[in-house]
Amino acid sequence: MRSDGRRTDELRPLDFRVDFTDQPLGSVLCTMGRTRVLCTVCEEPDVPRWMRGSGEGWLTAEYSMLPGATHTRSEREASRGKLSGRTMEIQRLIGRSLRAVVDRKALGERTLYVDCDVLQADGGTRTASISGAYVALALALGRLERKGALAGGVLRDQLAAVSVGIVDGVGLLDLPYVEDSRAEVDMNVVGMGSGRMIEVQGTGEGGSFDRRELDGLLDLAWKGIDAIVAHQREAIEGAGFSLARLLRGRA
Amino acid sequence: MRSDGRRTDELRPLDFRVDFTDQPLGSVLCTMGRTRVLCTVCEEPDVPRWMRGSGEGWLTAEYSMLPGATHTRSEREASRGKLSGRTMEIQRLIGRSLRAVVDRKALGERTLYVDCDVLQADGGTRTASISGAYVALALALGRLERKGALAGGVLRDQLAAVSVGIVDGVGLLDLPYVEDSRAEVDMNVVGMGSGRMIEVQGTGEGGSFDRRELDGLLDLAWKGIDAIVAHQREAIEGAGFSLARLLRGRA
Amino acid sequence: MRSDGRRTDELRPLDFRVDFTDQPLGSVLCTMGRTRVLCTVCEEPDVPRWMRGSGEGWLTAEYSMLPGATHTRSEREASRGKLSGRTMEIQRLIGRSLRAVVDRKALGERTLYVDCDVLQADGGTRTASISGAYVALALALGRLERKGALAGGVLRDQLAAVSVGIVDGVGLLDLPYVEDSRAEVDMNVVGMGSGRMIEVQGTGEGGSFDRRELDGLLDLAWKGIDAIVAHQREAIEGAGFSLARLLRGRA
Amino acid sequence: MRSDGRRTDELRPLDFRVDFTDQPLGSVLCTMGRTRVLCTVCEEPDVPRWMRGSGEGWLTAEYSMLPGATHTRSEREASRGKLSGRTMEIQRLIGRSLRAVVDRKALGERTLYVDCDVLQADGGTRTASISGAYVALALALGRLERKGALAGGVLRDQLAAVSVGIVDGVGLLDLPYVEDSRAEVDMNVVGMGSGRMIEVQGTGEGGSFDRRELDGLLDLAWKGIDAIVAHQREAIEGAGFSLARLLRGRA
Amino acid sequence: MRSDGRRTDELRPLDFRVDFTDQPLGSVLCTMGRTRVLCTVCEEPDVPRWMRGSGEGWLTAEYSMLPGATHTRSEREASRGKLSGRTMEIQRLIGRSLRAVVDRKALGERTLYVDCDVLQADGGTRTASISGAYVALALALGRLERKGALAGGVLRDQLAAVSVGIVDGVGLLDLPYVEDSRAEVDMNVVGMGSGRMIEVQGTGEGGSFDRRELDGLLDLAWKGIDAIVAHQREAIEGAGFSLARLLRGRA
Amino acid sequence: MRSDGRRTDELRPLDFRVDFTDQPLGSVLCTMGRTRVLCTVCEEPDVPRWMRGSGEGWLTAEYSMLPGATHTRSEREASRGKLSGRTMEIQRLIGRSLRAVVDRKALGERTLYVDCDVLQADGGTRTASISGAYVALALALGRLERKGALAGGVLRDQLAAVSVGIVDGVGLLDLPYVEDSRAEVDMNVVGMGSGRMIEVQGTGEGGSFDRRELDGLLDLAWKGIDAIVAHQREAIEGAGFSLARLLRGRA
Repeated sequence: MRSDGRRTDELRPLDFRVDFTDQPLGSVLCTMGRTRVLCTVCEEPDVPRWMRGSGEGWLTAEYSMLPGATHTRSEREASRGKLSGRTMEIQRLIGRSLRAVVDRKALGERTLYVDCDVLQADGGTRTASISGAYVALALALGRLERKGALAGGVLRDQLAAVSVGIVDGVGLLDLPYVEDSRAEVDMNVVGMGSGRMIEVQGTGEGGSFDRRELDGLLDLAWKGIDAIVAHQREAIEGAGFSLARLLRGRA
Repeated sequence: MRSDGRRTDELRPLDFRVDFTDQPLGSVLCTMGRTRVLCTVCEEPDVPRWMRGSGEGWLTAEYSMLPGATHTRSEREASRGKLSGRTMEIQRLIGRSLRAVVDRKALGERTLYVDCDVLQADGGTRTASISGAYVALALALGRLERKGALAGGVLRDQLAAVSVGIVDGVGLLDLPYVEDSRAEVDMNVVGMGSGRMIEVQGTGEGGSFDRRELDGLLDLAWKGIDAIVAHQREAIEGAGFSLARLLRGRA
Repeated sequence: MRSDGRRTDELRPLDFRVDFTDQPLGSVLCTMGRTRVLCTVCEEPDVPRWMRGSGEGWLTAEYSMLPGATHTRSEREASRGKLSGRTMEIQRLIGRSLRAVVDRKALGERTLYVDCDVLQADGGTRTASISGAYVALALALGRLERKGALAGGVLRDQLAAVSVGIVDGVGLLDLPYVEDSRAEVDMNVVGMGSGRMIEVQGTGEGGSFDRRELDGLLDLAWKGIDAIVAHQREAIEGAGFSLARLLRGRA
Repeated sequence: MRSDGRRTDELRPLDFRVDFTDQPLGSVLCTMGRTRVLCTVCEEPDVPRWMRGSGEGWLTAEYSMLPGATHTRSEREASRGKLSGRTMEIQRLIGRSLRAVVDRKALGERTLYVDCDVLQADGGTRTASISGAYVALALALGRLERKGALAGGVLRDQLAAVSVGIVDGVGLLDLPYVEDSRAEVDMNVVGMGSGRMIEVQGTGEGGSFDRRELDGLLDLAWKGIDAIVAHQREAIEGAGFSLARLLRGRA
Repeated sequence: MRSDGRRTDELRPLDFRVDFTDQPLGSVLCTMGRTRVLCTVCEEPDVPRWMRGSGEGWLTAEYSMLPGATHTRSEREASRGKLSGRTMEIQRLIGRSLRAVVDRKALGERTLYVDCDVLQADGGTRTASISGAYVALALALGRLERKGALAGGVLRDQLAAVSVGIVDGVGLLDLPYVEDSRAEVDMNVVGMGSGRMIEVQGTGEGGSFDRRELDGLLDLAWKGIDAIVAHQREAIEGAGFSLARLLRGRA
Repeated sequence: MRSDGRRTDELRPLDFRVDFTDQPLGSVLCTMGRTRVLCTVCEEPDVPRWMRGSGEGWLTAEYSMLPGATHTRSEREASRGKLSGRTMEIQRLIGRSLRAVVDRKALGERTLYVDCDVLQADGGTRTASISGAYVALALALGRLERKGALAGGVLRDQLAAVSVGIVDGVGLLDLPYVEDSRAEVDMNVVGMGSGRMIEVQGTGEGGSFDRRELDGLLDLAWKGIDAIVAHQREAIEGAGFSLARLLRGRA
């Protein structure tokens, strides 16, 4: 029995609240249990210097935790004057993952800024960021298409991420902090609607793992990804956009 | 007629959503029109080095805007590696204002961290931060009292802040961005429930002002402060804390 | 009776020593009691990127205290690698105040750099910086006009600043450190020759203030500003420039 | 056929030159094809503040590339004043991996600093760093045991790392830069002598992967790890230390 | 004939204005031609961590140029966030030179901070800093002796510095900027009252030098040092301190 | 007798290992006793902004010590986020020295980056950097000439550097750390094949020196420089380049 009564292969309650703020092109408050991440997507009509004239667009991501997001207040990185290695690692992961489902040619010479700000952290903030940012990205692209700024065909596939781990020898899906902090093995998987993977990051935290255990964790992860993908679809349709249409001509 | 149809002496719709997150001691999502600030209060059982052994506590504040808070995305200060002068000025103002209603002796040797993170900005973020942080502070102190960690008597008075300004020669209360960006004179006033002031910061932005105009702006500001003070009281009581009791023994 | 025997509405001995150094376009050593600030104005034939092509000029200010300026040596900000919030706040105030009396159109596409370096600090360094920098600015503009680099009409008004405060319940003009450090309320006022105000910054430091007290402080401040404005005029005329001519066509 | 004529499952020529420098406790120049990394291990008789008194030791790693290591000179991070996200990610990986085979209790309250400086980079620098640093670590521990500063039993297992990837649909072991820069999928695997894994980091770089492809890559990786582990053993024994003895009491 | 009519072996007009400010223990405005440096000495009752308990004192120096000190305004290092290599080199030189004439045992466990701030720069700022700082140091030590905080015997010798150089093949003493910027060879010499040297830094700037030319430059430098040493003595005596007494028991 | 049995005027064993790495244009591992410095030269087809269009080239140098280079590990400057004053001073010296033998007109609008990374430090790292970098520079220029990218005539002279010092009153050539740390006087001399000097930096470290002692140190230094110059010539010729030809048309 898990701390919160879930089965080993069960996700925490998941919610994508679209348009939580209205200034950005896309804005989603992603809630996964007590973890809450505000994901926004903004557009700028320029690309990094090394891409100018290429006809291709760019997408970059930034990640941050509010100081009050954790049980014990964490120091603000802006005050310390530099990003931690953990933050850099996470924002590189988010950006890389989202770029994998974006056709940069179809995007044209513009930059999409994805910002994932963790309002409350209870494990799985990087995977919630990716899953939530995907929804915000879909909304942003939908809006750009609607106002005729984009011809469409940018989104190549759906994208969702989830964490799995081994605690006391048992594989678990979607770990909150109390489980995560005790896990022997921790793994994040980023998968697409097509069933293929973009990222697998498995780490022995005090423990190690063999190939059979790796397989078991991937099984769990895919259960989660399939469920998240369904929720995302609902949220996007609920906001009045057709995901099928956004993905048309793909798959 | 103002852009949003308000009278010159009317506040925007105001809401204090208490316990928006549950990790901090106090957490309030303050909404003033489209401006939304998440204010949290955390406690640490220590004080700055120069205060150790004094028996007194400390309160400090930090302020930040999410990149997607503004119409055009603003660069993240953590990425630039330093705080802007504007941010420093604002967080010094928030901290100074809140300390004015805190009895540091009664607080004891602990530090309260106030974090104001602007989720969406539409003018008046610094004053919304102060008004919202006051509510979060009251909740935090109420909880510390309840668990017996504090004897009470820390809060000396109520505290609220508002912006006023002169646009096209007319004094206005609570300016959204469209008005603020055109104002000839801009003023922030921080006042207490007792009717006394903690801060008055009036600035000619392209224009200047004489003493009569200053007086007119103060009249407007106090209309706003009185209304905010009433909302705060409601929010605090609605969360199950008696503001009278928190202020008892004070006048 | 004040610590130095002055009346409550009396300024400290004030001196503007023009051309203290001769490399800058304008250079003034402003002495107010023991407070001594070297104010220089330099010109650069460019404007910030976002202003290029606008036909308008820019003025920016920087402020710094020498380490040995205070009784206890203060750490050098260049060594610490960042500006304090206090420094940023002050240099923003100086720049904003001076820009208020500069016609940027008439200035043309050039930048004026105002540097205020406090050689000795005994209270009121930010206001002495503004008052002294105004004189250096007038000299700089006068010289640019003389060498035909400027058609004139840049200066819109005179500008001076002073600090006032409440100590032991009594309003005082122009506070030295011993009074400033004990003040319940501290206020800086920046005024123009025309009698209008550019900035009012009143802060309760341990205390608070009501509107009657605010009025009393403004009365004191204007006594000081009127006296400083007279001194400035003398210094500028003494350096061989006609202030009337610099301001002609204005007021 | 690969660019350098190797089979798909063949490592580049591998060499561990022990004691390349003689100041550190352990020093190994690890060469893998044209990639050359100087790995050193130093000891300090202290641990991070949060570990003091715990009786446990610590191991931390730093990674850097010399500016001339790459074909086009790369800017020095010390000159830029901050570490890149890539560097942080890599040095976190190296430290985490090595700590997985260190018994921190047996190490006692001291810190081992592992420095991996890439003298020349031709792909696989992070995995060469791990494999080389393991040898330097074994030498350092052997020497500490010899001078009686350590009772032994610190090393729990052997450790090696290798990169694999998919290029033009074909899985390849140990990619040099020309292959790595074209790879659709890139994966780093850190394994132990016991056959268990510490880290698996698979990333779609332009491409994606399914579970069958992941399996194929893991097969290749283990071929490489087994070969590296044998080379490491030889190098350690060649330097006069018994790896068996260093690992004794372990399984 | 030199630009300012001096002989090749003649110093520029030299002045040490003692007590230019009164907050520091010692304060000297050193003027050498148009070069003006404010040198102050402050005391702190502590030493760097690595010296605590040694019974010895420390002296450290910082150097800075005001932005308006040079013909073209130079950027403020505090704004850039880091010291230039030139500044670091100079402040290391000043500190090293002054420490050479200080008996750190006799100084006791305190730190003397020497600050050299260049108000106006016209060549030779580092040597004027050393010569001026020596005077400020003598005043500071004299005052510490007078108030009984020091037993005396700290100053071991007199100290002065001067620049020499070769311009168009001719050796020159004490170069202003117009000469310095054209010099083929530039040399700074720090000498003591006893005739021995602490520092010789000769640099070919576009040119080179042989041993005969080096000798000629040293002859010139000593003419300058002897003259400066006499001026220093006068300034110190003029401030009411006996240099002989400060140096008693030495030489 | 010296610690390592050398005569007072004898160099430590000296070796220039050319092409230690093969990515840079020139790469030399310079060994002087236990001091080992990897010197590389890279080319970039651009010059600093202020030189563009001048038709001249630029050469700049960077210096760094690996953390494990010293007996006690030194902190990495990239981790601290800034260069020490010592590093800046040294890299300025290396760049200035090498530029003295480079004809920037003949080099054309390109930048040569010289990187000196100390793999092991045992005294004399800055002089070994200069001597080694000269060899790497000659190789780089030779290669640019061979591939026709350069017409030749860039190198004006040979260049070598050495340290000398006074220990216990005796002048010594080429000091290892054990001698350097006890030296009363320390001097670095950079000389050319022609017998002229580029830099002389003599410093009293606890002691001082007179002109006769300075002369004695210069005699020793030139013994060393003459020997190093011969070794350099051999290394360059051994790599298949004619130094005479590289210098032709000069001298």
